[in-house]
Amino acid sequence: MIKAITSKDNPRVKFAYSLKDSKTRKENKMFLGETKKSMDMALEAGVLLEVFALEWLSLPDNIQQNLVSIDVLKKISNNVNPEVVFIAKDIDLKPTKMEKLVYLDHIQDPGNMGTIIRTALAFNYDAVILSKDCVSIYNEKVLNSSKGAIYKMPTFIDELIKYKKSHQIIVSTLGKDSEPFDSISLNRNFIIVLGNEAHGVNDEVLKLADKKVKIPVQNIDSLNVSVAAGILLNTYAKVK
Amino acid sequence: MIKAITSKDNPRVKFAYSLKDSKTRKENKMFLGETKKSMDMALEAGVLLEVFALEWLSLPDNIQQNLVSIDVLKKISNNVNPEVVFIAKDIDLKPTKMEKLVYLDHIQDPGNMGTIIRTALAFNYDAVILSKDCVSIYNEKVLNSSKGAIYKMPTFIDELIKYKKSHQIIVSTLGKDSEPFDSISLNRNFIIVLGNEAHGVNDEVLKLADKKVKIPVQNIDSLNVSVAAGILLNTYAKVK
Repeated sequence: MIKAITSKDNPRVKFAYSLKDSKTRKENKMFLGETKKSMDMALEAGVLLEVFALEWLSLPDNIQQNLVSIDVLKKISNNVNPEVVFIAKDIDLKPTKMEKLVYLDHIQDPGNMGTIIRTALAFNYDAVILSKDCVSIYNEKVLNSSKGAIYKMPTFIDELIKYKKSHQIIVSTLGKDSEPFDSISLNRNFIIVLGNEAHGVNDEVLKLADKKVKIPVQNIDSLNVSVAAGILLNTYAKVK
Repeated sequence: MIKAITSKDNPRVKFAYSLKDSKTRKENKMFLGETKKSMDMALEAGVLLEVFALEWLSLPDNIQQNLVSIDVLKKISNNVNPEVVFIAKDIDLKPTKMEKLVYLDHIQDPGNMGTIIRTALAFNYDAVILSKDCVSIYNEKVLNSSKGAIYKMPTFIDELIKYKKSHQIIVSTLGKDSEPFDSISLNRNFIIVLGNEAHGVNDEVLKLADKKVKIPVQNIDSLNVSVAAGILLNTYAKVK
């Protein structure tokens, strides 16, 4: 169904705009996305609900299409030159296994979040678990930097302590008592923990560690967390 | 020396503003930077020349300080809430060795550029060489994402073909004839080549390859180039 909208006060436009607020977003279990590429991935994942675009797009009949003026589109977009804005329902993927997991503690940069989820998918991890103070996976920059991985990799918020009995907890941390990352042995079920970009993992998380590991570096304090994640996830995916 | 400036037409302000233009920047062999942290790193590296700030900063006498109004600072800043803008002279580091090198072909994203330079420094590579169509290392986002590595890692523009005789050229590419990255043997002198975020390396570069390597991935087309760089640079730094 296609509707033409020229008023910023149109109820669908107002609803789309309201989803920029994280509380409203969560209550409705929907998120806003941008770009045709991202829209196509939402469609393929079966979560695309409604589209706001400047021209008619070839989409299934059950997707509500709103033809809008550029002024209307700019109101609901975060981009200077928007082409399309869409509403999708929250992604709800259930892990098929819970053997190889990644836990992100207070990751704040959306580019890092999306990149780590993309990396976890590439190395066939089973799920990415987030502390509740991580950036939302529905942040537009997370959606973009994940390159669609967000639609395929089960990602949810949970507490690390729940995995203490079932999984070997491996924490990436630069402390003096950390072992070189490539010298440890892994259990069948493990969870790799990565901490905040500036502050690392918090003390509560550190107490839960079965192994503390580090990637030896020279000349500089640390690696970017996405890069550290890439090295650890690649190495541990191949073990056993 | 400290000067108070309230006019956007002040010659020093106009000069700083002119450095936003890449041609002027190159002619003067100077660049603009922002944030106190970045300024401190430029100072430590001996390239800091002049500072524009809202308040007096504790800096050596040979650094020209300009106390400016917020309006003046905003004129020369890229940030909404600028604290300090500085002029520095181009970084000119000479490699002490040319054994382990990284070559970036048409890397466009400043975050990737800075992150790869930071990673190369962390794993003790000797230099990062750029194709002439890479993003400038003096882009503010490169300076930020490098976390100061730009001041320590020799980085310069050159042609890959010049290294054909002296170095083993290892190209990261997803073609069918690529070998798994961890199965190759390395010469004493080698150069790791990483390509554009969307298009990979160009054909001319591919023709120069002694080895083509890939990092096997599942479920998704490719890794982020910074992540791929991290895995390759870490692995090859340890070989031999």
